[in-house]
Amino acid sequence: MKRGCKYGTHRVIEPKEVLPQPAVKVCNDMNIFDNEILIDVQALNIDSASFTQIEEECEGDIEKIKEKILEIVNNKGKMQNPVTGSGGMLIGRIEKIGNTLKDKTNLKIGDKIATLVSLSLTPLKIDEIIDIKPDIDRVEIKGKAVLFESGIYATLPEDMEETLALAALDVAGAPAQTRKLVKKGETVLVLGAAGKSGMLCCYEAKKKVGKNGKVIGLIRNEKSRDFLNYTGFCNEIIVADAQKPTQVLNEVLRVNEGKEVDIAINCVNVENTEMSSILPVRDEGIVYFFSMATSFTKAALGAEGVGKDVTMIIGNGYTKNHAEITLEDLRECDTLRKIFEDLYV
Amino acid sequence: MKRGCKYGTHRVIEPKEVLPQPAVKVCNDMNIFDNEILIDVQALNIDSASFTQIEEECEGDIEKIKEKILEIVNNKGKMQNPVTGSGGMLIGRIEKIGNTLKDKTNLKIGDKIATLVSLSLTPLKIDEIIDIKPDIDRVEIKGKAVLFESGIYATLPEDMEETLALAALDVAGAPAQTRKLVKKGETVLVLGAAGKSGMLCCYEAKKKVGKNGKVIGLIRNEKSRDFLNYTGFCNEIIVADAQKPTQVLNEVLRVNEGKEVDIAINCVNVENTEMSSILPVRDEGIVYFFSMATSFTKAALGAEGVGKDVTMIIGNGYTKNHAEITLEDLRECDTLRKIFEDLYV
Ligand SMILES: NC(=O)c1ccc[n+]([C@@H]2O[C@H](COP(=O)([O-])OP(=O)(O)OC[C@H]3O[C@@H](n4cnc5c(N)ncnc54)[C@H](OP(=O)(O)O)[C@@H]3O)[C@@H](O)[C@H]2O)c1
Ligand SMILES: NC(=O)c1ccc[n+]([C@@H]2O[C@H](COP(=O)([O-])OP(=O)(O)OC[C@H]3O[C@@H](n4cnc5c(N)ncnc54)[C@H](OP(=O)(O)O)[C@@H]3O)[C@@H](O)[C@H]2O)c1
Repeated sequence: MKRGCKYGTHRVIEPKEVLPQPAVKVCNDMNIFDNEILIDVQALNIDSASFTQIEEECEGDIEKIKEKILEIVNNKGKMQNPVTGSGGMLIGRIEKIGNTLKDKTNLKIGDKIATLVSLSLTPLKIDEIIDIKPDIDRVEIKGKAVLFESGIYATLPEDMEETLALAALDVAGAPAQTRKLVKKGETVLVLGAAGKSGMLCCYEAKKKVGKNGKVIGLIRNEKSRDFLNYTGFCNEIIVADAQKPTQVLNEVLRVNEGKEVDIAINCVNVENTEMSSILPVRDEGIVYFFSMATSFTKAALGAEGVGKDVTMIIGNGYTKNHAEITLEDLRECDTLRKIFEDLYV
Repeated sequence: MKRGCKYGTHRVIEPKEVLPQPAVKVCNDMNIFDNEILIDVQALNIDSASFTQIEEECEGDIEKIKEKILEIVNNKGKMQNPVTGSGGMLIGRIEKIGNTLKDKTNLKIGDKIATLVSLSLTPLKIDEIIDIKPDIDRVEIKGKAVLFESGIYATLPEDMEETLALAALDVAGAPAQTRKLVKKGETVLVLGAAGKSGMLCCYEAKKKVGKNGKVIGLIRNEKSRDFLNYTGFCNEIIVADAQKPTQVLNEVLRVNEGKEVDIAINCVNVENTEMSSILPVRDEGIVYFFSMATSFTKAALGAEGVGKDVTMIIGNGYTKNHAEITLEDLRECDTLRKIFEDLYV
């Protein structure tokens, strides 16, 4: 009987005494400990920033992308992009439940789940990559993974296609946090409003601000305007490059009577967008960075540099009930569900 | 008459359309624009993470450190460490005030000020490095710098040595934010409690939590225990390596009746301390990262990985009245002032 650490430190190979996420290498031996769960993996949903980086590095060549993914997993024992540091999530079926967990969980062998902890810390072994779907950052594989005792997951719902649920769960932290942060009557700016997490945030923000509030959706080019307009989730839509802070600031002021917003939510998937999120926010407002391409120092020094007294929040992938909140959004809003089915399934 | 952008974008050389902080290179021509201020610089106070990195790279050799600093400033037009991304602050005397600012400011030619915006965005030209004081991360120079219209600064107080004020102002964001975040009766963990910002945070936290609250100071080794004990700013002192999250967690639980804390404040100056700040905090608690060595992805994915619903805040170098709050601390607490005079002057 071997019992591992609840956070999985017993699997860390290098460097010693860190947790699995910052570790360079974890053990992906698939003989599980008594407080682990073994998953028969069907698909990986690679984090958008990570997939974009790999795709660019491999010049879009599917075979090269496959090789790159195998190389990463073989080297690190987990699918953590060495450049972006980020991971993603997976779905699969429960193959084995460690003895000490059997009584603590409702899971049964064969249940289909999505892990809600990042791939960047999940021990993974890939036997074969079956297919890659670059338009949805999805990698279908034959392989196994390990869930630690502290690992969170969602049993996949019966009333939804698994790919639909998976696509939404991948970004579940964003709408759930939006629900918590946004108050009635506020003005909210969502950067990357037509993206996956962006849309969910616009939807939640619109519900929360109510009639007297305002949701401003920022998109990169005119092409997305009709689409975002059709959702009805935004009161105003602006077109600007999130890497150009002064352009973003001017557009926001233009549609908001010259006023700064209360909250900015950054859902883009490219670097150097910190200042575009900070400049349009009023003093004592909030900037919520969901984008994994956010740089800590650029945000901290950037706000100081322009003398902005804003509270900047690091987008925690997990917040209480985030899976339930996000699946609920898809159930209650047909438009949202239809878009997600069209784009991500 | 030439008027620049209030945020200084007119000085950005590369890449185009970004702000001065993320820019790779800014123009350090010392002919100022009408809404700029020219400073005759006397000293740079290099950010601790940056100085530590340069010191290590140069193996502690003062001449090599000088060369490295000149190389950075010549290449980038500003003193921004290319590895850490961070800067620091400077002191100097007002040499010239742009025409359009003359009526808007109380500053006079010859006033001695400290800039409160980061060196990582401040156009700087060094004529000569006069001296380097590695124990206080201070570089004495002959040179000039430019303050933009949005740039914040503090006129150096009459009742304090300038080095004393400067040392405190460098980390002014931390105690000011602590004052805002900490509530009566809470339990607060400060990592790096015997460091410059750490001490100020302990002091502020102790004032705010009151009799029923608790401040736990984390230090790296026993050596600092007597010193921190003497300040009286902490209710409990624990010794642990902030790069070892499970060690930190266990120590915190040991001195806190097995309970997690409400707020953790990270004031260390080394990498890989995200999880040590996250693990000891209760669900719905706050983690405040002042350390510039914080990685956004390690924090975001790390919290998700252990299923922790904590609000993680990026330490904004600026918050309202941060200079006043910090100088006030030094004035009202003799112990603090004495320590700062001993250590940093
Ligand atoms: N914090 C967490 O726990 C967590 C978890 C999952 C994901 N994430 C991160 O969240 C971010 C968004 O994920 P997602 O799945 O929503 O991605 P997504 O669907 O690809 O959306 C990204 C959006 O950003 C837009 N965009 C890109 N560059 C832009 C620019 N320069 N200006 C304006 N808009 C721009 C894109 O517009 P176009 O379509 O026109 O290119 C797209 O709409 C990613 O960085 C991802 O890593 C974070
Ligand atoms: N967010 C902002 O705007 C802003 C502004 C200024 C500075 N900063 C950052 O704030 C941080 C602290 O600055 P500071 O001036 O207070 O630095 P400091 O005086 O050097 O203090 C750092 C403290 O961390 C401790 N420490 C280092 N490694 C440790 C470990 N492994 N375990 C436990 N403790 C450890 C040090 O202990 P020892 O003395 O025993 O080594 C020291 O007491 C730096 O990262 C700096 O870049 C941020």
